[in-house]
Amino acid sequence: MAEEVSNKQVILKHYVTGYPKEPDMEIKNGTIKLKVPEGSNAVLLKNLYLSCDPYMRSRMQKKEGSYVDSFTPGSPITGYGVAKVLESGDSNFKKGDLVWGMTGWEEYSIVTAIHTLFKIHDKDVPLSYYTGILGMPGMTAYAGFYEVCSPKKGETVFVSAASGAVGQLVGQFAKILGCYVVGSAGSKEKVDLLKSKFGFDEAFNYKEEQDFAATLKRYFPDGIDIYFENVGGKMLDAVLLNMKLHGRIAVCGMISQYNLDKTEGVHNLFCLITKRIRMEGFLVFEYYHLYPKYLEMIIPHIKAGKVVYMEDVAEGLESAPSALVGLFSGRNVGKQVVMISHE
Amino acid sequence: MAEEVSNKQVILKHYVTGYPKEPDMEIKNGTIKLKVPEGSNAVLLKNLYLSCDPYMRSRMQKKEGSYVDSFTPGSPITGYGVAKVLESGDSNFKKGDLVWGMTGWEEYSIVTAIHTLFKIHDKDVPLSYYTGILGMPGMTAYAGFYEVCSPKKGETVFVSAASGAVGQLVGQFAKILGCYVVGSAGSKEKVDLLKSKFGFDEAFNYKEEQDFAATLKRYFPDGIDIYFENVGGKMLDAVLLNMKLHGRIAVCGMISQYNLDKTEGVHNLFCLITKRIRMEGFLVFEYYHLYPKYLEMIIPHIKAGKVVYMEDVAEGLESAPSALVGLFSGRNVGKQVVMISHE
Repeated sequence: MAEEVSNKQVILKHYVTGYPKEPDMEIKNGTIKLKVPEGSNAVLLKNLYLSCDPYMRSRMQKKEGSYVDSFTPGSPITGYGVAKVLESGDSNFKKGDLVWGMTGWEEYSIVTAIHTLFKIHDKDVPLSYYTGILGMPGMTAYAGFYEVCSPKKGETVFVSAASGAVGQLVGQFAKILGCYVVGSAGSKEKVDLLKSKFGFDEAFNYKEEQDFAATLKRYFPDGIDIYFENVGGKMLDAVLLNMKLHGRIAVCGMISQYNLDKTEGVHNLFCLITKRIRMEGFLVFEYYHLYPKYLEMIIPHIKAGKVVYMEDVAEGLESAPSALVGLFSGRNVGKQVVMISHE
Repeated sequence: MAEEVSNKQVILKHYVTGYPKEPDMEIKNGTIKLKVPEGSNAVLLKNLYLSCDPYMRSRMQKKEGSYVDSFTPGSPITGYGVAKVLESGDSNFKKGDLVWGMTGWEEYSIVTAIHTLFKIHDKDVPLSYYTGILGMPGMTAYAGFYEVCSPKKGETVFVSAASGAVGQLVGQFAKILGCYVVGSAGSKEKVDLLKSKFGFDEAFNYKEEQDFAATLKRYFPDGIDIYFENVGGKMLDAVLLNMKLHGRIAVCGMISQYNLDKTEGVHNLFCLITKRIRMEGFLVFEYYHLYPKYLEMIIPHIKAGKVVYMEDVAEGLESAPSALVGLFSGRNVGKQVVMISHE
């Protein structure tokens, strides 16, 4: 008989409209048999770290035909995480393996979609990094910057939400390539970090700016070659006015719009023509074939201290709803992680 | 002594706001000496056809840092046209040559920017075609469709302003390639032309549709691979909702927005991410190096009747202001040309 243990879970109570709030979720004290179902190739995971990511907002509402499935009210939230394999029905994984990928917001998960799991080989870095710089956000920054932006040495780069899980990396990648990089963020603390820790040439607090177009003109008197778009709305409109000829906009996210009933209209798209701008959306999962190549590049950089990564770690599953909600007011400083259990 | 002759001109009286009106222009009876200034490498042209093009709207207002210069109030309007060389100060052109390129809205012009002129070699087609299918709009359709849209056989293509100077060609190019093509236009007459004359698979009158998103869904139940954007605003928003994964939007123009004080906001840009759409603006003048290749392709098609071209020809310089203004209410059926003089 398999051991039955308690399994705390974070449940989505109902679909969300507007800003998500903590009471949209609840902690449930469930139980789980620590056993992979007979004949299944699923894996049984002990979750160590859970990742809070902006894209999860769209999963909190009922949406037909979205690129990701909605969560199921009454069931645990799912998302990226780092976990330890307790038992495996598949020969690619074995007990004791560390993995990252799609798991549940609970202490233990049975994962059947094992193709979404990556085995962790290098443990000589903080394990939580596999929710961030070594996981989905890291690959997002890598693919978005190198594959979508077509960057060249000496170009000017603007990153919004620049201290976030992805933005802080885009800025550092751009600096490594020899670009001039400016970031925007939502507090003095974050702005200071961008300049002192992540090596951005300049940074500004968008909450203290009245006229984004004038702000960008100040930092980019000759215009922006590359915009790494994380926020959308008014900032995008201001960027369009400040782009250079043949500029590129990689559209990674639009977090300023996710909780609005009606999104802000973007008015300056005519600039796409006059400046011959390419604006391209992308999703990281189409680039995971590049993950081994990315690791080869990034792990030495991490170990040499050439690329740094800042995390905001909440402790315990109970803190997960608050951590997730905090993303949308920008409360997190750096990548938001929830620590569930030490290995 | 050079002969001095009368030279009627179309003058822009003042900068324009909102929809241009005929009284924004006036006909002036000037004179001109039929002589290239001593020592100049200019050419003296007798204008035969003038082209009315939507981009000219932006030249009717004062705009700093635009991609085209504003017109000068009090001076003749300039634009694309077909002309005959009466005298040339440059060895590349000689008396009797036919050319197309930038000229003045007047009977005779002295053109100093001779690099903007293309010599006409094939006269076995209507000369007015060099303001349309064999001129700037033709190259716009060619470059926009083949170079920007990356089209593939069997893809679904939507063209707005589809009976216009550019749209009618994009649709025909897409059909030649084996695409499914739907066009929108602003009258029953135009919709009929799209289907009967230009071979579009389907067409609709946008003025009779309440809900563009639903309309597009009807014509593209599986979505749009390629959108050739000529109008902007609400139509673009509806298209974004109906694009397929990895769709491409070539942004050629946004005529619905040119006369608005404040452009309409576009709300569905988040679709760029979820559908991984590439949206790219372009300007024809960056593709003129492909012009010889285009002629090689298009002239045999014209002569074989495989590609047809519809013009709306106004007679006489006096009709030019009305013809230009008519573009912005969609009064023209096909490419709007003004005939100034027979060769």
